[in-house]
Amino acid sequence: MNESSDNAAAPESGEVGLVEPHDFVSAEPFTFDCGQSIPGFTLRYETYGRLNDRRDNAILVCHALSGDHHAAGIHSLRDRKTGWWNNIIGPGKALDTTKYFVICTNCLGGCQGSTGPMSTDPTTGRPYGMTFPALTIRDMVRADKRLLDHLGITRLHAAIGGSMGGMRVLQFGIEYPDFVERMLPMATTARENAQAIAFNAVGREAIMQDPEWHGGDYAAGGGPRVGLAIARMMAHITYVSDQSMDRKFGRRKREAADAGPAGQFEVESYLQHQGQSFINRFDANTYLYITRALDHFDLAGTYGSLEKAFEPVKARTLCVAFTSDWLFPSDQNRAFVLALLRSGKSASYAELTTDLGHDSFLLESPALYDLVRSFLAA
Amino acid sequence: MNESSDNAAAPESGEVGLVEPHDFVSAEPFTFDCGQSIPGFTLRYETYGRLNDRRDNAILVCHALSGDHHAAGIHSLRDRKTGWWNNIIGPGKALDTTKYFVICTNCLGGCQGSTGPMSTDPTTGRPYGMTFPALTIRDMVRADKRLLDHLGITRLHAAIGGSMGGMRVLQFGIEYPDFVERMLPMATTARENAQAIAFNAVGREAIMQDPEWHGGDYAAGGGPRVGLAIARMMAHITYVSDQSMDRKFGRRKREAADAGPAGQFEVESYLQHQGQSFINRFDANTYLYITRALDHFDLAGTYGSLEKAFEPVKARTLCVAFTSDWLFPSDQNRAFVLALLRSGKSASYAELTTDLGHDSFLLESPALYDLVRSFLAA
Repeated sequence: MNESSDNAAAPESGEVGLVEPHDFVSAEPFTFDCGQSIPGFTLRYETYGRLNDRRDNAILVCHALSGDHHAAGIHSLRDRKTGWWNNIIGPGKALDTTKYFVICTNCLGGCQGSTGPMSTDPTTGRPYGMTFPALTIRDMVRADKRLLDHLGITRLHAAIGGSMGGMRVLQFGIEYPDFVERMLPMATTARENAQAIAFNAVGREAIMQDPEWHGGDYAAGGGPRVGLAIARMMAHITYVSDQSMDRKFGRRKREAADAGPAGQFEVESYLQHQGQSFINRFDANTYLYITRALDHFDLAGTYGSLEKAFEPVKARTLCVAFTSDWLFPSDQNRAFVLALLRSGKSASYAELTTDLGHDSFLLESPALYDLVRSFLAA
Repeated sequence: MNESSDNAAAPESGEVGLVEPHDFVSAEPFTFDCGQSIPGFTLRYETYGRLNDRRDNAILVCHALSGDHHAAGIHSLRDRKTGWWNNIIGPGKALDTTKYFVICTNCLGGCQGSTGPMSTDPTTGRPYGMTFPALTIRDMVRADKRLLDHLGITRLHAAIGGSMGGMRVLQFGIEYPDFVERMLPMATTARENAQAIAFNAVGREAIMQDPEWHGGDYAAGGGPRVGLAIARMMAHITYVSDQSMDRKFGRRKREAADAGPAGQFEVESYLQHQGQSFINRFDANTYLYITRALDHFDLAGTYGSLEKAFEPVKARTLCVAFTSDWLFPSDQNRAFVLALLRSGKSASYAELTTDLGHDSFLLESPALYDLVRSFLAA
């Protein structure tokens, strides 16, 4: 087998290849925006490329709601799936790991190794569950900063991310203005509108009304699997577009035998598959906490206005929006770029024409790669 | 109290006032499109106005997914809510009950008095549940026709309805070309795209994965109430628009005390209320059957092409679409009007500018009333 040949472990050209996650343990207490504290926390993270001697080539990649620290490469040679942003991270890619030291964490509150609701509360010896403090985007950012300090990074060449990742990017630039040279938020918003909150609310309701939720007190691997799957199926519709679903599935039935009025459509079994694979990798309580963090993120509300929020920012910003994104539509992206400009900041805005919807930022896009590459090099 | 005064029962000007539902029992077997039969069925219906001597003033009103036979007026003087289309039906209104004899049925498969999954199967003495035959829009139309025959109606002045009601209107015109003089479909489609199917699919999944569903075998008033509420909450988002939700709720919190990151938004409790009030009036199995009927409605697929589907049509058509309807967008409405025109039929199309979304056809709209009024008079 080629896989077991001598040079199999060497990354192919353009691939970061085998990577290993690390755990950063912060033993200092952490106080959330809500005022509650935890005695310390763990962040799971991965890095790609090497920190240079001037320590000025670090790029923080911020994942979205359902993402994690595994942004690129593979964990074993048997892995069929690479990290979630493998198309943009690697030697010679837009986030060029021969130039940049790329860091990706699982956010605070997450369920892929970082401290979150399913972690053990050291004061009780039991999982936090719903006693985990209410979480904000700013909490995530301040936790990430501890890791970056620990890694000896004194300045980020850039912070980049789409959707919730974009919110984290904006919050990072506001919270640590001297630390962030470039912000690259994509397909995001400075605050959700009522429709986006509504979709998250229905997802939370599906989880919390599931009789297996038990107020958030369930065993790992158990819990409200049905509710979480429903939440994910619904949310998935908002991540893509009408046109892309129509192109991919149209009205095709699963089998010719299903042609009758009780038959199942391909799009139905596809969504069921999305729901099922999600519950095998994601925790329902984390879903509740993170969607609440998304819904409550509101820069204008928190700081008085967008302009006031952006006052401290020193970073240059490139925002990339996508024409068919109906979850965080391009006008919401444009709105915060205009506020940055009104605040006298260096900011630019690109709108890519695509019919692939919100998730466009995750997909193959030479136009996106070019934008990112030149912005990082400038 | 005014309500108990002598003339309280007399309808106010413009109101149909007190109405009484009737049951039509068809004792003849009915064979569904799927090939299965039931020994007979009941349709609950209401009528407003009087059939004239020439029997040529009847208008059939076709309800949408969650509607019923109670389209106008009140059932008792204590009723705070009128029928679902009271704003368009009544003396002097667009469906003028001093001129027209307006009929509205609860569709076959429904749960408001017509025969559907919760009805008793006379061969077993138990509710049909999921043994109820798979249902199509054409089945609903053929059942309605039996009632119209029974009422001695030989020709409909018009068939009118929005959303699923619009599908029923189109199917009526195709199935009974000599019977229908005018078709008034609104906010509808000749076939759903993948996104609309996807939303219905998630709703069905929420119902069928609810442990209380029991394969559709549950007692009346029980069953998958959680799943049905989730399905309704999600569907409700698709009935309105981004803009209208933002105007109505924005990001307002329920109480000032809820301002923290765990606080609840007004739109959340609104949707919960939508879900809760729905489960008190609607049956989950009917929801499954009717959404399947919606998803499988496909005139082009069934007849070979839209043009072939419309070949027999003799009715004149006015289709009304709404700019902010993203469930059955205006281009889907326009598509079947163009096909009618290509088939040499008399058809016109009006697109009303509104930001209220799919449910616009149900809402106060003088522009809509004018269109309907003139089309019916022409």
